[in-house]
Amino acid sequence: MRTLLVANRGEIAVRILRAARELGLRTVAVCSEADVDALHVRMADEHRVIGPPSATRSYLDEGAVLAAAAESGADAVHPGYGFLSERASFAQRVVDAGLAFVGPSPEAIRLMGDKVLARQTAAEAGVPTVPGSDGPVPDVHAALAVAERTGYPVAIKAAAGGGGRGIRMVESAEVLREALPRVQGEAQSAFGNAEVYLERYVPAARHVEVQVFGDGERFVHLGERECSLQRRRQKVVEEAGAPDLPAEVRERMTRSAVALAAEVGYHGAGTVEFLYDPQRTEFYFIEMNTRIQVEHPVTELITRRDLVREQLTVAAGEPLSFTQEEIRPEGHALEFRLTAEDPDLGFFPSPGTLTRLNLPAGPFVRVDSGLVQGGEVPPFYDSLLAKVVVWGDTRETALARGRRALDEVEVEGVATTAPFLRRLADHPGFVAGQYHTTSLEEWMTDGSEDGLVRRSA
Amino acid sequence: MRTLLVANRGEIAVRILRAARELGLRTVAVCSEADVDALHVRMADEHRVIGPPSATRSYLDEGAVLAAAAESGADAVHPGYGFLSERASFAQRVVDAGLAFVGPSPEAIRLMGDKVLARQTAAEAGVPTVPGSDGPVPDVHAALAVAERTGYPVAIKAAAGGGGRGIRMVESAEVLREALPRVQGEAQSAFGNAEVYLERYVPAARHVEVQVFGDGERFVHLGERECSLQRRRQKVVEEAGAPDLPAEVRERMTRSAVALAAEVGYHGAGTVEFLYDPQRTEFYFIEMNTRIQVEHPVTELITRRDLVREQLTVAAGEPLSFTQEEIRPEGHALEFRLTAEDPDLGFFPSPGTLTRLNLPAGPFVRVDSGLVQGGEVPPFYDSLLAKVVVWGDTRETALARGRRALDEVEVEGVATTAPFLRRLADHPGFVAGQYHTTSLEEWMTDGSEDGLVRRSA
Repeated sequence: MRTLLVANRGEIAVRILRAARELGLRTVAVCSEADVDALHVRMADEHRVIGPPSATRSYLDEGAVLAAAAESGADAVHPGYGFLSERASFAQRVVDAGLAFVGPSPEAIRLMGDKVLARQTAAEAGVPTVPGSDGPVPDVHAALAVAERTGYPVAIKAAAGGGGRGIRMVESAEVLREALPRVQGEAQSAFGNAEVYLERYVPAARHVEVQVFGDGERFVHLGERECSLQRRRQKVVEEAGAPDLPAEVRERMTRSAVALAAEVGYHGAGTVEFLYDPQRTEFYFIEMNTRIQVEHPVTELITRRDLVREQLTVAAGEPLSFTQEEIRPEGHALEFRLTAEDPDLGFFPSPGTLTRLNLPAGPFVRVDSGLVQGGEVPPFYDSLLAKVVVWGDTRETALARGRRALDEVEVEGVATTAPFLRRLADHPGFVAGQYHTTSLEEWMTDGSEDGLVRRSA
Repeated sequence: MRTLLVANRGEIAVRILRAARELGLRTVAVCSEADVDALHVRMADEHRVIGPPSATRSYLDEGAVLAAAAESGADAVHPGYGFLSERASFAQRVVDAGLAFVGPSPEAIRLMGDKVLARQTAAEAGVPTVPGSDGPVPDVHAALAVAERTGYPVAIKAAAGGGGRGIRMVESAEVLREALPRVQGEAQSAFGNAEVYLERYVPAARHVEVQVFGDGERFVHLGERECSLQRRRQKVVEEAGAPDLPAEVRERMTRSAVALAAEVGYHGAGTVEFLYDPQRTEFYFIEMNTRIQVEHPVTELITRRDLVREQLTVAAGEPLSFTQEEIRPEGHALEFRLTAEDPDLGFFPSPGTLTRLNLPAGPFVRVDSGLVQGGEVPPFYDSLLAKVVVWGDTRETALARGRRALDEVEVEGVATTAPFLRRLADHPGFVAGQYHTTSLEEWMTDGSEDGLVRRSA
């Protein structure tokens, strides 16, 4: 591997370019016409403009990215997260062009991208899955029979969905009867696939995920991450490790994640997501993300491993650089996702020019950003400004450091979630580590005087 | 301890304010009239202007700092490094005013500030000292007798000097005869004390220092730092640990440093500096710095301990938060001191307005700076812009990361040493870890085409 094309933008493109540069690789950036002055373009050795601002005609255009790779003499492609990162078709075309795809095989992406197949594979690997239908439910009759077994509430999920999309929770047989055909229709139009399956709905569930790594022969985990603080199913704050997770659960969960990676002969970085039921202390497989995650830095801070570097060396054919025994997580890490959104206006995106941008720094604080002062937050893509990541010897220290770091954020030119995140860092539920996937939205709408969001007039 | 006054400026003031904020302390900054818009002033809860730009009339004015502490209701004072940090008289006045001085006792500062007494104390603690006069030499006759024993070359050092000031190396008896009275006269006018002592001069010596910490009862070390890359006796790059230091030497050296700390019942953070003779694999005590050092972050990165936080908790009367066994250095760290100086003009200071300032970030990179874009580098103080500190699992990884980080530095408005440091990061001697205290100046003047400094026309 000599020349790496980074098929992404923003902070993750910068993150990948940094790892590539440290490995001595030549780097090629791609960008849309909206990003020609972006940091990731300036950091790369060269760049190719691959299309107009619209993501579907640039960062999501497989042909344009492949052409840029061919023209620039790249011999490897890193897809980052989002965009083309979980498109098996793209990975296949990269491989067919004789280049290294920095990720698992197209087969593994395809398998894990199909929620029904992924669930079956998990079950075969002995990984607990949520009680539900073993595959798509053909009709209302079958669905009612499944729900009878799992009990209500039950979730209807699109087989081709994921990331919180294509899910409907129903409380009773009556609602199920009426909702099923509607969800099937919605799945057809949204994903081109009408198949849906049913799962037990777990109240007060937590989202806990395990970072895994494989080189096709050895499979290891790098501990878990707590990702339950979500707004509209988008993660807002992540932690490593998960607060108050019983050691016995952690042990079973990480073992399950490694078993799944081994089952598919996994290659590269992956994340096995679990629904954790704190009442029953049981966890269920949700899905496996076959790419680097936004929140990977919290794992890097507690394990001191460079996951993106490891992705690159494994993709170059090297074996994993560490054994399971060498991974010894230490301390606690938190990631705050700072976005250009206005919390007081329903988190409406706030694109614009960053006339001022001072991000936190100093001891045990890491900031990953694709922006610098004077840069542009274009309206065409996600609104992530920076990931503010902190480490502490204890969760309490990390939290104090996180507050300090958020206090240092100075942004002018766009609205940001910094004040919202800062209030969140003081919220008793967060401070106690007592929360689940719907807690944040509950805290935001609880109407208390010291609520997280100021009510608009 | 509730309110901390930070009696310093620049990056170390910011560093201290960050630690104080994470501990929940109220913070008071002091500043000269040149620094009213500085970052450390903006980061503190409140500030006091203590004088005109001249350091002697502001940051070095004990009375002005003490008055600011009294007026602001501070109950503790952190002196940082430089300025008043090693003035026993100031520490005494802080203590007499009923405030906590974040540092050792005035007695310990006084003892270690007198090079002759410090050397005697080291010898009593069993710490090796450079063969030489046991105390001041009264006259040429005595000096010649000492030099006869140690052999030539020999160094004449002012008892009240330090930090590379007040030192003269002589090669022969003839030169010693002529130089001694001159150095005594210079010491009298520079330090108000004519006493000088003699020491064996060690060629190709390395400067290796040990970070120690004490709470008056327990004394620990946090490993060593290599600080031999110096220009005009000012450190330019520091490492933790020291490259190729034999384990047996490290063991003896750290044990010696702890013994010295214990000998004086040390309280707080200190650094025991050694001259290391790689030919003889012997080390000799140079001096003990009774304050936090500029280069403390490399130790923080390999030990994951927050030394400034520890200074504050120990000053507040708490015991050390860690035992010797709990300190397990891991990996390698490098610090590059980025200054506003022009390497092509003999490192002439380059004050001005930072019209552009993009500092490195991302995984395993830490930047400590007292400046933000738009800020001023005033001409009155040292010219440190930022400390670029990197960690890697190996020295090689850290070095690759250091190069990557230096490549990210973008500064406009002042000249900087970034290109010089970047060339240094590629220098074979540095890459090999094969250097001593005069190497950097030799590399700079070796006249080679790819030399570190471009020759001015």
